[in-house]
Amino acid sequence: MTQKIGLIGYGVVAKGFYQLLSQSDLPAEVARICIKNTDKQRDIDQGLFTTNAQELVTDPNIDIIVELIDDAQASFQIVEQALNHGKPVITANKKMIAENLKQVNQWHQMLEAPLLYEASVAGSIPILSTLNQFYRHQEVTQIRGILNGSSNYILSKMRLQKLSMDEALQLAQKNGFAESDPSLDISGKDALYKLVILSYHAFGELTTSFDHIRLESITNMEDQFFDLAAQQGMKIKSIATATKKADKIQLKVQPELVNIEDPLFNIEDENNAIHINGASSGPQLYTGKGAGSHPTGAAVMQDLHLLLHGFRYTIRAPKNTAAAPPIETI
Amino acid sequence: MTQKIGLIGYGVVAKGFYQLLSQSDLPAEVARICIKNTDKQRDIDQGLFTTNAQELVTDPNIDIIVELIDDAQASFQIVEQALNHGKPVITANKKMIAENLKQVNQWHQMLEAPLLYEASVAGSIPILSTLNQFYRHQEVTQIRGILNGSSNYILSKMRLQKLSMDEALQLAQKNGFAESDPSLDISGKDALYKLVILSYHAFGELTTSFDHIRLESITNMEDQFFDLAAQQGMKIKSIATATKKADKIQLKVQPELVNIEDPLFNIEDENNAIHINGASSGPQLYTGKGAGSHPTGAAVMQDLHLLLHGFRYTIRAPKNTAAAPPIETI
Repeated sequence: MTQKIGLIGYGVVAKGFYQLLSQSDLPAEVARICIKNTDKQRDIDQGLFTTNAQELVTDPNIDIIVELIDDAQASFQIVEQALNHGKPVITANKKMIAENLKQVNQWHQMLEAPLLYEASVAGSIPILSTLNQFYRHQEVTQIRGILNGSSNYILSKMRLQKLSMDEALQLAQKNGFAESDPSLDISGKDALYKLVILSYHAFGELTTSFDHIRLESITNMEDQFFDLAAQQGMKIKSIATATKKADKIQLKVQPELVNIEDPLFNIEDENNAIHINGASSGPQLYTGKGAGSHPTGAAVMQDLHLLLHGFRYTIRAPKNTAAAPPIETI
Repeated sequence: MTQKIGLIGYGVVAKGFYQLLSQSDLPAEVARICIKNTDKQRDIDQGLFTTNAQELVTDPNIDIIVELIDDAQASFQIVEQALNHGKPVITANKKMIAENLKQVNQWHQMLEAPLLYEASVAGSIPILSTLNQFYRHQEVTQIRGILNGSSNYILSKMRLQKLSMDEALQLAQKNGFAESDPSLDISGKDALYKLVILSYHAFGELTTSFDHIRLESITNMEDQFFDLAAQQGMKIKSIATATKKADKIQLKVQPELVNIEDPLFNIEDENNAIHINGASSGPQLYTGKGAGSHPTGAAVMQDLHLLLHGFRYTIRAPKNTAAAPPIETI
């Protein structure tokens, strides 16, 4: 039977998902779409739209909620209500997941309705399903990645086209690789959200406060630092790292000097990459587009495929309980 | 309830799988192991062993068959019998799968018991589950990969240590990266088996004959070709390619000149890599170890995880029926 989807939001990723779903043979269709403003002219049947998210979440004819809005607070409320109504949920809201990891873990453990969010991390790279399937039964010792396409794009353009950071940022915005408010990208906060989610799935780590995590903006660097790196045949990249040492997980996001031997050396522009070290598999590298309507929409499509096949995340036993010490600073 | 596994074979990969399973929290355990020769001293409980595969396949107390032997013909018989007895099967036998694709497709479509074989392609890289989940609902346009660790190791050593092909082969054998009979590796046939399996999962392509596929051994190259490549800053690598053009799939395995812009340029030694182009996601690269006891055992562990969670391959509708034209030569 065709599953009815309530789609919350109709921005870039939601449109990509809508298009991919309508071309696919998955037994599911978008039945309603919740948006903020119904006055806007839309390219699809105007009758699909509503401004009342509550309506979708409680409607017994809606089987699955796909939530793709920016607002983390509104996202949390919608996801919570939908799950409590027994509806499976797919979301891409990294801030909502990362800032509510304890609650998310309870949802994963206590509720029948699954919650998936592949598109929240590294755009098109199917890293969460890989962590939950391939890496679930081996120890992960380290994850190191380029998780923010905007800042990587800016650093690439500064190096290759000798632009200043401001010029590179303007170019990124012009080409759609940075938000109109790029502060989350530049500060490393966006990458940190993703790293916190990866760390939850790789280690079972429940990060509840970001205060002690080293987080350094790409703007903290002097111009001459870039010249020095280039002279040595090295590059500066904003790297997110989660390392397991003696059962403690260390997280950091900071600009780093990488040399040609580094698996992340060749990752340029808006691409993302994740390098993982597993005790059984050895090192692996996954690269792909970190954002975009269809690339990120494809990750939402995978979640839908998995939902329809009864898949849910099987999280490792959390290491970090209320009684445990906070995350170590590095 | 703990699932009982009948393990067929106790070679390098089977031992890796046995070790990883015994350390894991998966509700499954190896109940019997079928080997050729019970006289050999084993490092685990001698009572687990039998030489009668039939016994495991028909035993109502065995829930799952994990088949990890080299012999493709024996593998086929065991897998067929197990599936017909309603037992889910995990195998790593690429030759058996690739040479019996039509039968495998019927098993996938007609039988209740699932058949998974992640470890048959690219060792530790979880590419088949990725093709069946992330890539299942978008068009794949090309797969290009380094799928044979032995030949890649030989080519790396020839270039970096200026060895002849014979010397590099001996080094590969000494370090456990090549079989005592390396002809399948060197000829490209091993990579071709893997490419045929990838092509089935990426395109739904049922390759039934290998006669018209371009297959070129790495031994066909003159020594001076290597010097020429080096002078141009290029490398020679054995590349397996499956390309979709106007609804036809073209397969080939051959040594190719790759330059520094090529995503496969940096894949050295026994590593494998797969570069995929998907219509929605754009290009992606997956790299990892192509062989080894624990890396390949980890892929078997993933299959077991998926089996226990009710996963099975959802293959695209096959393109290539009996009435269809054979695969185009290139």
